[in-house]
Amino acid sequence: MIVVKIGGTTGVNFDAVTTDVAVLIKAGQRIVVVHGGSGETNAISEQLGHPPQFVTSPSGFTSRYTDRTTLEIFAMVTSGKINTLIVERLQKLGVNAVGLSGVDGRLMEAKRKDAIRIIDPSTGKQRMLRDDYTGKIEVVNSALLAMLLDAGYTPVVAPLAISPEGDALNVDADRAAAMVAGAVKAEKLVILSNVPGLLRQFPDESTLITHIDKEKVEQSLEFAEGRMKKKVLGASEALQLGVAQVIFADGRVEQAVARALDGHGTVIS
Amino acid sequence: MIVVKIGGTTGVNFDAVTTDVAVLIKAGQRIVVVHGGSGETNAISEQLGHPPQFVTSPSGFTSRYTDRTTLEIFAMVTSGKINTLIVERLQKLGVNAVGLSGVDGRLMEAKRKDAIRIIDPSTGKQRMLRDDYTGKIEVVNSALLAMLLDAGYTPVVAPLAISPEGDALNVDADRAAAMVAGAVKAEKLVILSNVPGLLRQFPDESTLITHIDKEKVEQSLEFAEGRMKKKVLGASEALQLGVAQVIFADGRVEQAVARALDGHGTVIS
Repeated sequence: MIVVKIGGTTGVNFDAVTTDVAVLIKAGQRIVVVHGGSGETNAISEQLGHPPQFVTSPSGFTSRYTDRTTLEIFAMVTSGKINTLIVERLQKLGVNAVGLSGVDGRLMEAKRKDAIRIIDPSTGKQRMLRDDYTGKIEVVNSALLAMLLDAGYTPVVAPLAISPEGDALNVDADRAAAMVAGAVKAEKLVILSNVPGLLRQFPDESTLITHIDKEKVEQSLEFAEGRMKKKVLGASEALQLGVAQVIFADGRVEQAVARALDGHGTVIS
Repeated sequence: MIVVKIGGTTGVNFDAVTTDVAVLIKAGQRIVVVHGGSGETNAISEQLGHPPQFVTSPSGFTSRYTDRTTLEIFAMVTSGKINTLIVERLQKLGVNAVGLSGVDGRLMEAKRKDAIRIIDPSTGKQRMLRDDYTGKIEVVNSALLAMLLDAGYTPVVAPLAISPEGDALNVDADRAAAMVAGAVKAEKLVILSNVPGLLRQFPDESTLITHIDKEKVEQSLEFAEGRMKKKVLGASEALQLGVAQVIFADGRVEQAVARALDGHGTVIS
């Protein structure tokens, strides 16, 4: 079993990645696809007159502020558009894909971060922000995935989760992929984005780190820029959950998944 | 087994309908929910700068022109927003709902109307329109629905289908509900909208037709205004597929589904 995370980032070659996924599935590989969609959510939020808002924590981390309107736009874009397009594309390639989000069948249950401490940009002071619809996944209900896989379907998972109270939540797609990989006992988690892997000196691609010992993955956080931080955290979580190997690889190239499985990229094991 | 079609129309009381669906499911009823979303697709298409376009056939029928951009907006709104909100709401009510569109697992296969004859509004002459992503459902693959229902999930279906070539298509939600009802061998199909049923003199609600003999359903097309025509066609298809009873009922009231099952509305049997 392999979990493939396809970044929503511009530059990832969706057609090539899905073609590659289809080849592997037809060769008998069991695959679960997890995808993102933050970038496109931002673009459509702008078009809908509800531009994305970002908040900064006292420790300097920047994250999306997901009010209810943003949550609904995030659901539209990730679950309605990106998920449907990936499923459609896989169906064209003869793969019987089924799209899901974590709300469906309570596939991904998350704790809602219902009060987050931020720095108010107008005063520079700390304050609590309460109506945020973001969560951290705690449980993946793998029974639904197992049932679909056993029946010959390929699950394609959008990064929404559900709270114990039943609220849909925006979750980080890399960490969702990690939790899914752990839940389905995947041997490998391939995280594709628009860089060749973890770079010692971002953005110099010649400084690619080809291997990280699984015991030292947290230390490699120091090299992680921006969104790569979440990928490193995801990798760490997946390894803790028993996934043998996490590979950060280039999603812009042909045969991206096969190349990653051959060891191209940053292999953490 | 009952199939409940929830109109996307303004006025349908989503909270009351889903509450009622939850009560019935907890009482042991097996239900598949099918929903629409044309109205909200129109609104969001406008906001995204791609206003809905309608075309008129030589026989005077008006329908949506679904170019590829519109199809993607339709998928976003129906599968991403409306479907997610219904699943979220059912989850809050303790029902383990799973959202699907007809693209997932090839649930609904449709023949694409890839060339439609229209009256060109600028010339008044007939011409063929070719890049339309609309379809007529031919097959519902009930195995996926049966598997989910047997495992205790409640399927919630968005009105997208897939062509033999693997293209996602916009389909009429009333006729999708009819095809689903036939495929799952439902005893009853409840079609909720913002009117109390089929009216002899639309919009005079005192002229409600309370019963139509199943042999005479096509004749009742003469009373059907606008979107009600598709509902009558859907009813006719469902009855032909072996559904014993189709009920057009008021979705604006409390206990809409229970009332419909008690015979309030237009009962076709």
